Amino acid sequence: MNSLLAEPHRDRISVVLVSPRNPLNIGAAARAMANFGFERLAVVAPLEEHWREAKSAVGASNLLQNAKSTKCLADAVADCTLVVGTASLEHRKPEQPVIPLPELAPLVQKELARGGRIALVFGSEKRGLTREDLALCQVLTAIPTDSSQPSMNLGQAVAVCLYEIASRIGETATSNASPEPASETAAPASTRDLDLLAGVVEETMLAANYSPAEMRNANRHDLDLLLRRLALTRRDAGRILGFFRRILWRLNQ
Amino acid sequence: MNSLLAEPHRDRISVVLVSPRNPLNIGAAARAMANFGFERLAVVAPLEEHWREAKSAVGASNLLQNAKSTKCLADAVADCTLVVGTASLEHRKPEQPVIPLPELAPLVQKELARGGRIALVFGSEKRGLTREDLALCQVLTAIPTDSSQPSMNLGQAVAVCLYEIASRIGETATSNASPEPASETAAPASTRDLDLLAGVVEETMLAANYSPAEMRNANRHDLDLLLRRLALTRRDAGRILGFFRRILWRLNQ
Repeated sequence: MNSLLAEPHRDRISVVLVSPRNPLNIGAAARAMANFGFERLAVVAPLEEHWREAKSAVGASNLLQNAKSTKCLADAVADCTLVVGTASLEHRKPEQPVIPLPELAPLVQKELARGGRIALVFGSEKRGLTREDLALCQVLTAIPTDSSQPSMNLGQAVAVCLYEIASRIGETATSNASPEPASETAAPASTRDLDLLAGVVEETMLAANYSPAEMRNANRHDLDLLLRRLALTRRDAGRILGFFRRILWRLNQ
Repeated sequence: MNSLLAEPHRDRISVVLVSPRNPLNIGAAARAMANFGFERLAVVAPLEEHWREAKSAVGASNLLQNAKSTKCLADAVADCTLVVGTASLEHRKPEQPVIPLPELAPLVQKELARGGRIALVFGSEKRGLTREDLALCQVLTAIPTDSSQPSMNLGQAVAVCLYEIASRIGETATSNASPEPASETAAPASTRDLDLLAGVVEETMLAANYSPAEMRNANRHDLDLLLRRLALTRRDAGRILGFFRRILWRLNQ
C-alpha cells in the first residue's frame, strides 16, 4: 500500500467544493481526502453554516476544521496553476478540453513536476459547476458513468477522483526529486496572475471602446477561457500585463 | 463515455454487501452501481429491515427492489466462480492472495472471458468481512489508502471499486465476442460446486476419524481455502466429488 500521495505533493493538490448543499457531503469529501492522503480542502459559499461539524467526516475532523472557506471560486483557487473542473457534461457543451478521469493522472503529474499547484473543483449537488465557475478551469474531467444514471453522489464522486489520482500518480511523481521548476521563468501562471491580467485587459477593452457595454460579460468570459488555453508562464503573464498597463495608461490620458 | 460495462457482463458481476448496518449505505452502494452500469446486488443479513426503501439510492430504486437477500454469504455467491473479498488488511494476516485494486481489472476480465461469474464482496461498516466470510473468497482486493486513515465509508468504497472495474475492463472484454468458454469442461467451478465438494470431504474426514472433533471447524476452514486456491474446473470438482462419495460410502458400510 505504498502507492499513495507523496508528502511533497499533499500540499499542492486542493479539493474545492463549490456551493455544496448538504454538510454530510462535505464531511464525506473530507473523509475520502483523509483516506487517500489529501489535506487541502476549500469550501466556497456553502448553503449551510455548520458544515465544519459534519459527523460524516470520520477521521477527518481536523481536515474539516482547517478547511479554507471563501465566497467565490476565484479566491479558492487563486494560487493554483492548474484548475480542473469536474463535469457530467450532460447538459452543457464544454468550452475546454475534457479529459476522462482514467486519463487524468499524467496531466496532474506533469503539473506537479513543473512545480504547479492543482485544484480539483466540484460543483453543487444539484447543478454542478456554473458556466462562470467553468471559465476558471483550464481543463475539465469527467467520470465515465452510465448514460442511464450519470449523476453521482458528491462524496462518492470525490472519492473516485481522489482514488484515481492517488493510486496513479504514485511512483513516477515521487521519484522526481526536485518538484520545483528548474527556472523561475518557467513557472506556470496562477489563477491570481491570470485574473489580474484579465482585469487589466478588460479595462483596456472598455477604455478603447472595443465593444458595447452589454457585451462586457461575454467578452470577459471568452477572455478567461482564452487565457487558460494559452498555458502562460508567470513571466509571460507579467510581460503581457505590463504591456496592457501601458496601453491603458495611454488610453486614459 | 463509452468505456462502460458491456451488456453481456452486467449480468455476471454481483455486488454483495455482508451485514451492512446502515440502510443509507446500502442505498449509496446501489446508486454507485447504477452510475457504473452494474445491476446485480445481494444483501446478506442486513442489520435493519427496511433497507429497500433507502432514499440514498437515487436513480437506483429498482435495483434495490430487485436485490437478492440471503441469510449467509455462501447463498449469495452460490453461482459465482470468482469471489473477490474487499479488505483493509489492517488487523488480519490474509490467507489468500491480495491484489491491489488498481491491478484487479485484468483478473475480472479473464474470468468474464472464460464465462465465469464474479462477486465483489464488502463487509459490514464496523468490522469488515469475518474470517468465515473471507474463507469463501478466492482472492482479496485492497483499495490503497493512507495508513493514517485507512477506513473508508462503505458507499464510497463501493463507488471506487466499481469505477475501477467499469472503466478498466471496458473495451478488451467487450471485443471478446464469445464470453462463454470454448468447452463446457473448462468452465470454472462455482461456489456451490465447491461447497458441495467441501461438505462431502468434511464428512469423509469425520467418517475416517481423520482428526479430533474439536478440529472440525479449523479443518473445514483450511479446506475452503485450499479448494479456492486450486482453481478447479466444474469437471474437476465433479470428479473429485464422485471419488469422495465412493470413499464415504465404503467408510460407512
